Amino acid sequence: MNAQWIAIDWGTTNLRAYAMGRDGVLAQAVSDDGMGRLDRDGFEPALLRLVGPWLRDGQVTEVVACGMVGSRQGWHEAPYRAVPCTPLDPAALVLAPTRDPRIRVRLVPGLKQASPPDVMRGEETQIAGALALMPGFDGVVCLPGTHCKWAHVSAGEVVSFQTFLTGEMFALLSQASVLRHGMQGDGWDDAAFDQGVSDALSRPERVAARLFGIRAEGLLSGLSAGAAKARLSGLLIGMELAGARPYWLGQAVAIVGSEGISASYARALKGLGVEARLVKGGEAVLAGLASTRAKVTA
Amino acid sequence: MNAQWIAIDWGTTNLRAYAMGRDGVLAQAVSDDGMGRLDRDGFEPALLRLVGPWLRDGQVTEVVACGMVGSRQGWHEAPYRAVPCTPLDPAALVLAPTRDPRIRVRLVPGLKQASPPDVMRGEETQIAGALALMPGFDGVVCLPGTHCKWAHVSAGEVVSFQTFLTGEMFALLSQASVLRHGMQGDGWDDAAFDQGVSDALSRPERVAARLFGIRAEGLLSGLSAGAAKARLSGLLIGMELAGARPYWLGQAVAIVGSEGISASYARALKGLGVEARLVKGGEAVLAGLASTRAKVTA
Repeated sequence: MNAQWIAIDWGTTNLRAYAMGRDGVLAQAVSDDGMGRLDRDGFEPALLRLVGPWLRDGQVTEVVACGMVGSRQGWHEAPYRAVPCTPLDPAALVLAPTRDPRIRVRLVPGLKQASPPDVMRGEETQIAGALALMPGFDGVVCLPGTHCKWAHVSAGEVVSFQTFLTGEMFALLSQASVLRHGMQGDGWDDAAFDQGVSDALSRPERVAARLFGIRAEGLLSGLSAGAAKARLSGLLIGMELAGARPYWLGQAVAIVGSEGISASYARALKGLGVEARLVKGGEAVLAGLASTRAKVTA
Repeated sequence: MNAQWIAIDWGTTNLRAYAMGRDGVLAQAVSDDGMGRLDRDGFEPALLRLVGPWLRDGQVTEVVACGMVGSRQGWHEAPYRAVPCTPLDPAALVLAPTRDPRIRVRLVPGLKQASPPDVMRGEETQIAGALALMPGFDGVVCLPGTHCKWAHVSAGEVVSFQTFLTGEMFALLSQASVLRHGMQGDGWDDAAFDQGVSDALSRPERVAARLFGIRAEGLLSGLSAGAAKARLSGLLIGMELAGARPYWLGQAVAIVGSEGISASYARALKGLGVEARLVKGGEAVLAGLASTRAKVTA
């Protein structure tokens, strides 16, 4: 195997590496050496543990990494770039300090917005990748996840963006709140999801009451786990869509993320008359990292 | 000491006991033997550990207990009573099975509402106590806490009520979400609280975005811990007040709860032109438990 370069998606909980050849991915590897469990001196060893087999003595392999690895608590800070700007500027990559002569590691900076204050780190690469995969796209990119981002994209630049805490609220409420008691078990109820979306869109201010209603209905009439989970998801996504209305109303929308959560957002948006294009999150990351490299070597 | 009876407030995390004489509280005790750490056979021993010194051989002491102790996972189920009804009916107390001949334990049932589905357990006693402390009160009782309740009270009956998950969301978001990073330390910023209330009241659908904004502002411009915590509290209470508008608009409002959180609700309501009466939660529980007893012995 002859890796021409290595693409890295390095978040808080995982480290994902891709050995890249002329025609795409030659090999991939993943570990749980996310930023959250590493101190500053732990990043290079963690990387070498994972990609060591892809390196050759006497040869320098280029590594491009995006995500929390470039945060202040990461390997080395890659300062935020301010919007409006292109999602990814190859000239703004930041060199990380390394000891091993076989690698040269550059980090992708995140984006910041002054007003309203907002930040992203990792999603800028997915946006760049989505634009590479959909040349000429103008509109809004929605990136569901722990912290869902909505970004206005025009003429290849991120004009503005807004982050919602939706995914983290779903995780906390379904796993750590009183609602967890009614959510043990598998199953998913599309009708309950749709009802949650609809309730939250029409009365977003009542969401905290609807949340307790899930618990009460479980106690009083045995709401199923599948319906409870789907209703919770629908309420939170519905509230987000109510708040993100300026982003999706009358816009071309692309959803970039993993399949399950992207499908939920697409379903909710379809109910509002918006047909979103879907881009797989993993493919977008790779296309984004590759786009920086292509420009660097051009 | 000669306890005529014993009042018990037995929640998920704490067990509070009061030795009651003719003129009020003779002694009190608290332990962390809440329902959450007891199985069914553990309740009587936990009670005896705490109130044993107040009992006399050859004499039966009456014990009246409210809270989660009467739930399905508690000592013995005291089935919910359906609203509209008085908050507390002495004839509906449920006898708990006991082995020790020195005690006779009765449990206060909670209240349920069919539509929209809702339940309370413990707060019905505080409402009964608040009515005993404010004879002739007609209006709305707000009971802040982990699960804040709003209850319409008319002619001595609870007509309807609604629960908001506000307190639990504050705890999870401030302690377990990404926001916790900016909330270490003391301090409280009233202006940030007011701003949060105002933001949420005017645009409740944007609360999940405002929440992430707290984190972003911490990263970009060093928002203080006191301002971050107060803003979070303001956003969640403001969203609740937006959803509870039918409860407080044009109504006489009484807030029953602990001093700190009651003051926050009172401040937010005052900004909306509502001057709420304040009743201390502990006094309301005791007055409620005493009211059942007074009627029983009458």
